[in-house]
Amino acid sequence: MKIAALSGGVGGAKMAHGLVQCLPPDELTIIVNTGDDFDHYGLRICPDLDTVCYTLAGLANDATGWGRSGESWQALESATALGGPAWFSLGDRDLGTHLERTRRLADGQPLSEITRHFCRQWGIDVSVLPMSDGRAATMVDTLELGEISFQEYFVKHQCRPAVRSFRFEGVESARPAPGVIAAIASADFVVLTPSNPWVSVAPILAVAGVREAMQAKEVVAISPIIAGKAIKGPAAKMYLEMGIEPGALAVAKHYRGLISALFIDAQDAAEAGAIDRLGIRPVVTDILMPTTAERKRLAGEVIAFLQHLHQEKGR
Amino acid sequence: MKIAALSGGVGGAKMAHGLVQCLPPDELTIIVNTGDDFDHYGLRICPDLDTVCYTLAGLANDATGWGRSGESWQALESATALGGPAWFSLGDRDLGTHLERTRRLADGQPLSEITRHFCRQWGIDVSVLPMSDGRAATMVDTLELGEISFQEYFVKHQCRPAVRSFRFEGVESARPAPGVIAAIASADFVVLTPSNPWVSVAPILAVAGVREAMQAKEVVAISPIIAGKAIKGPAAKMYLEMGIEPGALAVAKHYRGLISALFIDAQDAAEAGAIDRLGIRPVVTDILMPTTAERKRLAGEVIAFLQHLHQEKGR
Repeated sequence: MKIAALSGGVGGAKMAHGLVQCLPPDELTIIVNTGDDFDHYGLRICPDLDTVCYTLAGLANDATGWGRSGESWQALESATALGGPAWFSLGDRDLGTHLERTRRLADGQPLSEITRHFCRQWGIDVSVLPMSDGRAATMVDTLELGEISFQEYFVKHQCRPAVRSFRFEGVESARPAPGVIAAIASADFVVLTPSNPWVSVAPILAVAGVREAMQAKEVVAISPIIAGKAIKGPAAKMYLEMGIEPGALAVAKHYRGLISALFIDAQDAAEAGAIDRLGIRPVVTDILMPTTAERKRLAGEVIAFLQHLHQEKGR
Repeated sequence: MKIAALSGGVGGAKMAHGLVQCLPPDELTIIVNTGDDFDHYGLRICPDLDTVCYTLAGLANDATGWGRSGESWQALESATALGGPAWFSLGDRDLGTHLERTRRLADGQPLSEITRHFCRQWGIDVSVLPMSDGRAATMVDTLELGEISFQEYFVKHQCRPAVRSFRFEGVESARPAPGVIAAIASADFVVLTPSNPWVSVAPILAVAGVREAMQAKEVVAISPIIAGKAIKGPAAKMYLEMGIEPGALAVAKHYRGLISALFIDAQDAAEAGAIDRLGIRPVVTDILMPTTAERKRLAGEVIAFLQHLHQEKGR
């Protein structure tokens, strides 16, 4: 059974970490949002790719949810002592990743090839693909500051500005990275990991050919929202600002027409009926996965459900 | 009494460190070679400027002669684990300097302005100027590898290839940085610090207008060679490969027509007569300056000599 998983940062990385514990490497492809990518201090930074890879490689700082474990901060301290911007936390170990990625990009290597090489060096044997080798910058139109880049919104302004809309700049001309469409086309199922629907999953869906490739597929999602609150990040706040009551039902409506099932938390069981009436099968379970074991447990439940779907379809 | 000092890396930095201990800040300008500057991992690195500034700011690693004290190596370790080049040692603290310089250059700030800002942040109150805001890359033509950049020669190949000649690529179009010509023109004396004549002082002299501005000036040099050996670096090896016996006399011949006096080490006192016969006044003293106190002592001797010259001229 082949699965293609669409992933943003922290939530997607946790789900991916669960899935790699349950599937052989050749049965899983993780397609990662690169809409957050930006240049800082002259270096290319790919926050979601790094979060996914650090998590899969066991290098992630689980306490913060971003960056690397055993991190030090000498370079950033030295740069900010000279007046450099401090708003984006660049650890020394993390910097090494950005340095080598920037060097290879300048050398003409595409991001997908660099990511494949990094995964090999880090001992990750599942396929991790950036959604595109081109640029497609997520722009956030805010009430207070007008349009700003995603990292400015997310890190510099800590998601404080009220969101009016999103735009994925250049996504029209960003081609899917090699392997992305093939991974979806050859998958039995596509999993939308519990990442932010607006700014983590939507950019991937906006890449040419991705939605089309998914139309023939059975797609299931895991809600990134529990009891009206985002597990991490600004998803719930974004729903509110877009005039939508945040919750499992809102996620179901968001993905309506795309997904056939939605994993929701037991705390949201009351919304199961309404989700079912949208034509989306609700699967009620514990969707929080702070530990490695919890990630494996939830991934196992998702896979068991997909195998069940598989058998149903076979009948 | 105003002094303009031309400086490369380690030797020049030590002399500059001596001079700042003896002169008020407005009487000294240090003009630094940027022919060694190069881009690595996407960052602009200015080895000589950094060595001078780190030394003057008390941030230098005196044990190695380059880089910063209290340094860590997490970023480079992380980059090389991904296959990045390890030949140039980039410490974490040092990286902060390159990050912020690269960010400001990309922002359109000239190197001279960035250097002035860095000096202010580091508490350096003497004027430190790059020789140019443009690029003038020192290229080394070698017997074994053909023409390579200076950092490749110096660091990657550890000065092993035999030198045939030097070229300062682009120096014809590199204009002196703001203040360079004015500092020389308004100086009473120009000091050639004990840096490598071939690859540290020569690039500065090759910048348009520098030699011309010096013609009207009294110029003195401190030999970078003691007893036929370079105090640090490949100067002696270069003399040999250019078919010249390395020594204080060779330095005197090198700077003939440019300097009126040469400080040489007591070990080279036997060469004083031959230097004198070139029309260059030899000043025999101890020119090694490993410690802060030794730097001040030698700088004091240089200044006393210049004051003596000043009085002679006044007569």
